[in-house]
Amino acid sequence: MKRIITLTTDFGVDDHYVGSMKGVILGTNNEAVVTDITHGIPKYDIFKAAYTLWGFYKYFPKDSIHVVVVDPGVGSERKPIIVQTEEGIFIGPDNGVFSFVLKESKRVNIFEITNTEFMLEDLSRTFHGRDIFAPVAAHLSLGIDIQDFGEVLKNPILLEIRKPEIKGGEIVGEVIYVDSFGNLITNISRDMIDNPREIRIDDFVVDTVAKSYQDVARGDLLVIIGSSGFLEVSVNQGSAAQFFDNKNPNIVLINT
Amino acid sequence: MKRIITLTTDFGVDDHYVGSMKGVILGTNNEAVVTDITHGIPKYDIFKAAYTLWGFYKYFPKDSIHVVVVDPGVGSERKPIIVQTEEGIFIGPDNGVFSFVLKESKRVNIFEITNTEFMLEDLSRTFHGRDIFAPVAAHLSLGIDIQDFGEVLKNPILLEIRKPEIKGGEIVGEVIYVDSFGNLITNISRDMIDNPREIRIDDFVVDTVAKSYQDVARGDLLVIIGSSGFLEVSVNQGSAAQFFDNKNPNIVLINT
Amino acid sequence: MKRIITLTTDFGVDDHYVGSMKGVILGTNNEAVVTDITHGIPKYDIFKAAYTLWGFYKYFPKDSIHVVVVDPGVGSERKPIIVQTEEGIFIGPDNGVFSFVLKESKRVNIFEITNTEFMLEDLSRTFHGRDIFAPVAAHLSLGIDIQDFGEVLKNPILLEIRKPEIKGGEIVGEVIYVDSFGNLITNISRDMIDNPREIRIDDFVVDTVAKSYQDVARGDLLVIIGSSGFLEVSVNQGSAAQFFDNKNPNIVLINT
Repeated sequence: MKRIITLTTDFGVDDHYVGSMKGVILGTNNEAVVTDITHGIPKYDIFKAAYTLWGFYKYFPKDSIHVVVVDPGVGSERKPIIVQTEEGIFIGPDNGVFSFVLKESKRVNIFEITNTEFMLEDLSRTFHGRDIFAPVAAHLSLGIDIQDFGEVLKNPILLEIRKPEIKGGEIVGEVIYVDSFGNLITNISRDMIDNPREIRIDDFVVDTVAKSYQDVARGDLLVIIGSSGFLEVSVNQGSAAQFFDNKNPNIVLINT
Repeated sequence: MKRIITLTTDFGVDDHYVGSMKGVILGTNNEAVVTDITHGIPKYDIFKAAYTLWGFYKYFPKDSIHVVVVDPGVGSERKPIIVQTEEGIFIGPDNGVFSFVLKESKRVNIFEITNTEFMLEDLSRTFHGRDIFAPVAAHLSLGIDIQDFGEVLKNPILLEIRKPEIKGGEIVGEVIYVDSFGNLITNISRDMIDNPREIRIDDFVVDTVAKSYQDVARGDLLVIIGSSGFLEVSVNQGSAAQFFDNKNPNIVLINT
Repeated sequence: MKRIITLTTDFGVDDHYVGSMKGVILGTNNEAVVTDITHGIPKYDIFKAAYTLWGFYKYFPKDSIHVVVVDPGVGSERKPIIVQTEEGIFIGPDNGVFSFVLKESKRVNIFEITNTEFMLEDLSRTFHGRDIFAPVAAHLSLGIDIQDFGEVLKNPILLEIRKPEIKGGEIVGEVIYVDSFGNLITNISRDMIDNPREIRIDDFVVDTVAKSYQDVARGDLLVIIGSSGFLEVSVNQGSAAQFFDNKNPNIVLINT
């Protein structure tokens, strides 16, 4: 049965781990369309996994199954879960990786995966990506009822997602993600920005939100509404992260 | 509708950007066969993207759609285009990434993408890979007429592709690409080589073109006709790039 | 004809090489399901390729075709081969990359690939992944008889796979693979471990095999049965490789 299953992990791409997960999925449903998102989440970085998932899932068909394995607690008491929303199905550990998805989803069902029938028989202590999450995704993709995988889970673990502070007309934000271009993505969202007269990035002051990277000279600093709808600090054909020596600068925006 | 769509970008594989493009494509045509070529083009390196595209596209079915997003001018005046040749369809920015393809194609049609109907509604200023190139590729893969995407474009931007100089019997070439093995790929093509009696690579002199890497001892320098049909400088089980301290050596070939 | 073809190489993901192989495969069989395992095998490291292959192949459908290209001898006398087992079909150079597979397979047929009909016409000296292994895999996936590709090969090259030594009640193992998490995977298999009273890793002594990484504090050393069924040395949310300064420690296990 044709169905998209995406993979997001911190496994890197140098070992056989991702390949093993693909094998398990295709071994159960050889019509699954296994789609790599990234395996480059920094090891054990649950927040980055949560943010990354939020960045891409809305663009996929709503019946896609998104497997997210950043799982420092593998083999411990942490629970394997399935999250069902109107915009997608999500499988992974209950450790906060679904925080952004859960925050913006209206109708949500969460199930703890307990039915061993849908796991590999020889369950390891260290690789539930292969032994639980991949086979569960594959079985789900075959149309097995989501309720067959386990019991409803009520209080999933949620990461704190900090909002900017509003202090006397100033919006004080922070960098929440740095991408591989060195763009600094802040938590100041588009709707908070109203024709600003000043944006301070540490000691640097910018008085306008750019329309494109090329509004400034190559190597110069700018701020722009990024592709996720947040204010980003960038350098035209360069890296804002390097510009600030990889230290996250303070971001303050003053609207008119 | 089944159709191959390949992706070549400078996005790296650590962020959600590639995943977002895949989502957009599969969200529009869930039978598209999305195929990663590389996301490791050095950031903003249009020449390397152009060379890379040239290296692989001929091996794909002729109805494949190749999306190339190395796009430092995103959001500026640079135009999004579709290039139609007898050997493939190409989508990306009009900044030179299609130079090698255009140089060797006989019958070419180029269209500027202007029809917003085939773009994402919420068009960002920074990520046309997701908002324009991916949805255009997906719509094209569904069989929509290429002329529906926009107007004919006459003079696409072409990078200079330098040929070796011929100086009194000497062919003076240069390194145009260094691969991840450290092979130095020159612009001296196979047909320029006629039983050479001397090949100088900086101060090193080689008197024969090797038949295989193993013609010389491990760690030794050699020249060979590489897989793209150009003279390459290599080290058996080592890196010619390291051998020359990552500085591109001068290449001079003297035929008999 | 739908058929899974997996790719494992040392090509990295930055050049067009992997893309060219995908093009050749899809150009011959556009229903092949081309599946990346890893292209991050360290250059020329045949042992790691062999271990990696062993790590994932069992999880794939038995009719999958696994292409492995770590091929320092490309263009020399080394032979291109097809290995047929009950658990999969394998294509690559006869240089030891199939050692683990061959060791554990009961019924094996090996063929030297000699039929040029199934190779690219313009055969390079440096890229048999594209010119031989990819087109052979694609033709095999179309159902062409394996015997049509060449003659039976009797004595494939096998790497030495060292077993732990048993010395007076002590099992003296060694690290055979270090993964990207920094886990040190040893050659001491699960069945050799019988309620151990002491495990020495260089000067460190552990008296129990952990049930999960979280049995110890973050940053602390542990040993655990890893996902491949071997004893692994790990650090909870850290890297055992870094812990030992990237020098492989001695591993000694004493059962009760």
